[in-house]
Amino acid sequence: MPSNLTHAEMDKVPRPAELLYLLHGDPAELSDALSGLRPADIADALRHLPPDAAARLMAVLPFDLAVPAFDEPELTHHRADIITRMGEEKAAPLIDAMSADQQADLFRELSDTERRKFLKVLEPPTRAALEVLLRYPSDTAGGIMTTEFVSVPTTWTVQQTLDHIAEVGRAKETVYAVYCVDPDREALQHVVSLRDLMVASDRSQPVGALGDQRIPISVRARTDREDVARLISKYNLLAVPVVDDQNHILGIVTVDDVIDAIVREQTEDVHRFGGLEAIDEPYLAISFWGMIRKRAGWLTALFLGEMLTATAMGFFEAEIAKAVVLALFVPLIISSGGNSGSQATSLIIRALALREVKLRDWWRIAARELPSGLTLGVILGLVGVTRIVLWQRIGWYNYGVHWPLVAMTVGLALVGVVTFGSLTGSMLPFVLKKLGFDPASASAPFVATLVDVTGLVIYFSVAAFILGGTLL
Amino acid sequence: MPSNLTHAEMDKVPRPAELLYLLHGDPAELSDALSGLRPADIADALRHLPPDAAARLMAVLPFDLAVPAFDEPELTHHRADIITRMGEEKAAPLIDAMSADQQADLFRELSDTERRKFLKVLEPPTRAALEVLLRYPSDTAGGIMTTEFVSVPTTWTVQQTLDHIAEVGRAKETVYAVYCVDPDREALQHVVSLRDLMVASDRSQPVGALGDQRIPISVRARTDREDVARLISKYNLLAVPVVDDQNHILGIVTVDDVIDAIVREQTEDVHRFGGLEAIDEPYLAISFWGMIRKRAGWLTALFLGEMLTATAMGFFEAEIAKAVVLALFVPLIISSGGNSGSQATSLIIRALALREVKLRDWWRIAARELPSGLTLGVILGLVGVTRIVLWQRIGWYNYGVHWPLVAMTVGLALVGVVTFGSLTGSMLPFVLKKLGFDPASASAPFVATLVDVTGLVIYFSVAAFILGGTLL
Repeated sequence: MPSNLTHAEMDKVPRPAELLYLLHGDPAELSDALSGLRPADIADALRHLPPDAAARLMAVLPFDLAVPAFDEPELTHHRADIITRMGEEKAAPLIDAMSADQQADLFRELSDTERRKFLKVLEPPTRAALEVLLRYPSDTAGGIMTTEFVSVPTTWTVQQTLDHIAEVGRAKETVYAVYCVDPDREALQHVVSLRDLMVASDRSQPVGALGDQRIPISVRARTDREDVARLISKYNLLAVPVVDDQNHILGIVTVDDVIDAIVREQTEDVHRFGGLEAIDEPYLAISFWGMIRKRAGWLTALFLGEMLTATAMGFFEAEIAKAVVLALFVPLIISSGGNSGSQATSLIIRALALREVKLRDWWRIAARELPSGLTLGVILGLVGVTRIVLWQRIGWYNYGVHWPLVAMTVGLALVGVVTFGSLTGSMLPFVLKKLGFDPASASAPFVATLVDVTGLVIYFSVAAFILGGTLL
Repeated sequence: MPSNLTHAEMDKVPRPAELLYLLHGDPAELSDALSGLRPADIADALRHLPPDAAARLMAVLPFDLAVPAFDEPELTHHRADIITRMGEEKAAPLIDAMSADQQADLFRELSDTERRKFLKVLEPPTRAALEVLLRYPSDTAGGIMTTEFVSVPTTWTVQQTLDHIAEVGRAKETVYAVYCVDPDREALQHVVSLRDLMVASDRSQPVGALGDQRIPISVRARTDREDVARLISKYNLLAVPVVDDQNHILGIVTVDDVIDAIVREQTEDVHRFGGLEAIDEPYLAISFWGMIRKRAGWLTALFLGEMLTATAMGFFEAEIAKAVVLALFVPLIISSGGNSGSQATSLIIRALALREVKLRDWWRIAARELPSGLTLGVILGLVGVTRIVLWQRIGWYNYGVHWPLVAMTVGLALVGVVTFGSLTGSMLPFVLKKLGFDPASASAPFVATLVDVTGLVIYFSVAAFILGGTLL
């Protein structure tokens, strides 16, 4: 039977590591047990150990296993804690051997004093490269790029280039994309893939003559990582070069870094849609007060907005006193508006993120959401009226002598509120984008809050119209 | 100045294509205009044209541009419409030249009659490979794999393998991972990267001796595409082999297919979190009634659940009649519970998706959400009480003689409702997972509905306790 490392088996890795440590407390023994594992699995184990234990484990791991494990992007948020507990002499060779993008990631997490301390003990070329990368924010191409790429003059032959890769390939982040530069100005001119080189019929021709002759796809250091991800995904690239104004290559962003970026953006989007500030740390790793801070801000802001419902309800207090039956349906009606709004918002957030619709398409969406909202509102309105009629007829509840008018009020209010909810929910991401915010900040609770206040006004206005002279 | 294809420029591609077509209606002219573009951009143009125009454009595009453009995964949901309009003679060579995974994708979208019609005109080997792929659902490894991979016996030398890649490399989906099989049983034994081969010091050694000697990572045809994505992302692979029980390679899933899978799963998750059935088609492409169907189901289900609020309110009708002031705060209080629940749900959905927490960790989460909820509840409670005190003191609203008790009721109810919301919201994904559902089905509206009913009961119970004997 083959041993396939399926997801279920993957899940088992960290726990035994933690258990082993708890049982024996001996990092050397744990290191033995882990030596058959892949770097990503060791990174998993390191992530699940207390930082002190992880630092001791790092110290006893064979260097050629410690480096790739410590290089795993999954160790973000843990590396700084581990490295500061390892001491500078042990840490310096490890940091020197890491890939440039992960070095930068580590240094971004260190405090200013620690950063200066560790920069001092690094080899001068490592330090110089690192200081360049640290200039860029972590959510830009510059922040996730690496400086270890293969670059040759366009005048080199295919064979020369293949020989060069054989020689330097081990130390590069990827060898599958080769960047061809102008021999004089060193500006990026051309990209060939290792596949192009391998299948070339004539190995004495210059690399510049090979492959796609279009201007290569490149990004700027300040390009948002989300846009880098979209380019790599759209054009099925293994890496994209990051260039400056003179078209000199500063670094490359590889597809595996982009997957990590996509997954992080996804987490951000879900958190924000859920109505809190995005949290880039594991749930169980963030501190209690850190968590409260991320949640309390939005929760309080929404609460302040929602206070307008109390104001709106206060405005209709006399109506409620006269017809208490109206109050019964308040939660039902406003929540239906919120739900339809939340649906529309989730649709539009994704459509905007995937560039299926653009800002200027807002009116097409509005033209679609108006009939959609009306249809959905009619469906819910009919269900609502049926419920009131049934309960009244069966005798489960008595909505008073004017119950047909109450049913009509609820039904019509639902049509209005759901239509308004769909429209508001679909337009909110556009408004946010227009104002320069990320459309993904349009959270479900945000939409619900917007719709609740207006929903009450719609409901009581319909009530005043239909029940005026009878109940009101 | 270098011409960088940034995201903003990317956005411009489809519109001019559509415009050009609208202006001239001449596919040949459009084809000329598009010939300088990359396949992904042509796919974009095809996506934005009416299917008839797209079919005519396909017919006039040079074959070596038509094939890679039609092969773009972004054309999913459009290909079937285009191909059926092209006629079998024109379509057959195009389909034959597509990559196997995209062929399967196309055939999954064809109706049964069309599928049989097009299968008939294909080359026999294409047809055979396709019939295998079509056995697997599109959200499994088998459904997104391709059969064009490089495989050699473990006994071959490095040089033999490199020569083989140079010869067959052009027709393979990727040449960067080479699968080494047992010379007799043909079972997967080993994977080497093209980089390993290139940098090998001795090109006469067998490929089996090169690279990582651990059992290779592989998946089954039925493995969920999300798990495949997680493996590729975790182990930074360019492709993962799909094997059967005898460890024979059925195909490979490449990293670019996985990115598409991740992006689709992301869309699904956002849609479901927004409270509708996941829609795998662009917003503007899905039909009006298709859209209504995806939304009406959940909206009605939530509405039926929310009807319990009318029942709960009915239960407290006497209290409301006696103290109408209580009704004013109903929307504020229940929405706060829903908002805190939505926050907690979004956190746990992502933590579960990223495997940061497991099902068995539910009690750790509960142990964290209880104090978090209490703290957030106290914050909102204080804000709520302050608001009532302020409005009363300034004279903006009169909450009656017992206003301090009303303020206390609102404050305490908020603590209870927010705590309950956080707990419910965090536990719902676990409950769904335990019951065998996807935890990501826990939508914000679903949580809000659950919390609304209980929120009312909490509120009126607190009111009965505090206001009993005075207002009630």
